[in-house]
Amino acid sequence: MTTIDFWYEFASTYSYPAAMQIERRARIEGVTLRWRPFLLGPIFSSHGWNDSPFNLYPAKGRYMWRDLERICAKESLPLKLPPLRFPQNGLKAARIALVLAKNGRIGDFSRRVYAASFAEQKDISEDETLAGILRTLDLDPAVVVAAANTPENKAKLKAQTDEAIARGIFGAPSFTIGEELFWGGDRLDDAIAWAKR
Amino acid sequence: MTTIDFWYEFASTYSYPAAMQIERRARIEGVTLRWRPFLLGPIFSSHGWNDSPFNLYPAKGRYMWRDLERICAKESLPLKLPPLRFPQNGLKAARIALVLAKNGRIGDFSRRVYAASFAEQKDISEDETLAGILRTLDLDPAVVVAAANTPENKAKLKAQTDEAIARGIFGAPSFTIGEELFWGGDRLDDAIAWAKR
Repeated sequence: MTTIDFWYEFASTYSYPAAMQIERRARIEGVTLRWRPFLLGPIFSSHGWNDSPFNLYPAKGRYMWRDLERICAKESLPLKLPPLRFPQNGLKAARIALVLAKNGRIGDFSRRVYAASFAEQKDISEDETLAGILRTLDLDPAVVVAAANTPENKAKLKAQTDEAIARGIFGAPSFTIGEELFWGGDRLDDAIAWAKR
Repeated sequence: MTTIDFWYEFASTYSYPAAMQIERRARIEGVTLRWRPFLLGPIFSSHGWNDSPFNLYPAKGRYMWRDLERICAKESLPLKLPPLRFPQNGLKAARIALVLAKNGRIGDFSRRVYAASFAEQKDISEDETLAGILRTLDLDPAVVVAAANTPENKAKLKAQTDEAIARGIFGAPSFTIGEELFWGGDRLDDAIAWAKR
């Protein structure tokens, strides 16, 4: 079965609707899904950006929030604007997600982090927000967070971000099928069609 | 009947497939179409960019060419890569397009300019390229170019670009229906659906 790699960043607005539907879509379409959290910060820094392009370029930012609103309305997804802050720091969430990739809970966890961020105006960089999410998944926050903070796991997230850059990824969400790259939630259908070729 | 304004720039790669299909789509969907050429240069300058972001950010540029290739393949549109140069200077073509908006030939002209640029590796800033296109449309280049170069017509293009900025447009192609803005060729379906609401 062909595999789609789903590259996402917890601070990324357009990753939210993509994350909420991709597992369901992959199952229906018979495509294997790999959740690949990574960090956009190093990529943006390499462009000379010290902030999200949606903040640096206000017209682009205003458009994005309206566009996200339309997308969420279309997909019946809750969205609470303005968000608590933007962009949020998704580092801790990404490290935890990597740990949960091993026991198959990464999808559940990732969806709840996105809901906290974009539907519940919570701060996803706060330990208590993340611990609360882990508890709703019947996971022990102390155990998971300890595993997230090992040097090995931190290095793994760095390596995953390096791999994203090496694959030509410059934004989120992105989808890869082998060497083929698709960027943007609006390319999910194309990515799935490519995977099924 | 509701009107879609189609905001495009002759140097814009993603405007090419959009321009080739929009008149046909609008007719089928029963939506009135207005061709609105404008210039991206002043918008990019205001971002501090002295070149296309696809040149400034190489990963983004590499992705765009591959993505355009896939889009053109899907829509059976010819595409010749690499292009003669990128971005091309679309100023003269945009001025001529504005003149032809008055006699209903703007669509025919715009499609031929895009074909010259992206399928025939021609320089669309050269007078002879534009004159050749006008002749194939049974238009007199001397007359049309003279009208394009009047101070009134030059001011009109500047005003149209200012209107684009005032409407929050920051890239091409864009579509507006009243105050509602959609950016990117992949939003044409959404823009049409919005126009028909």
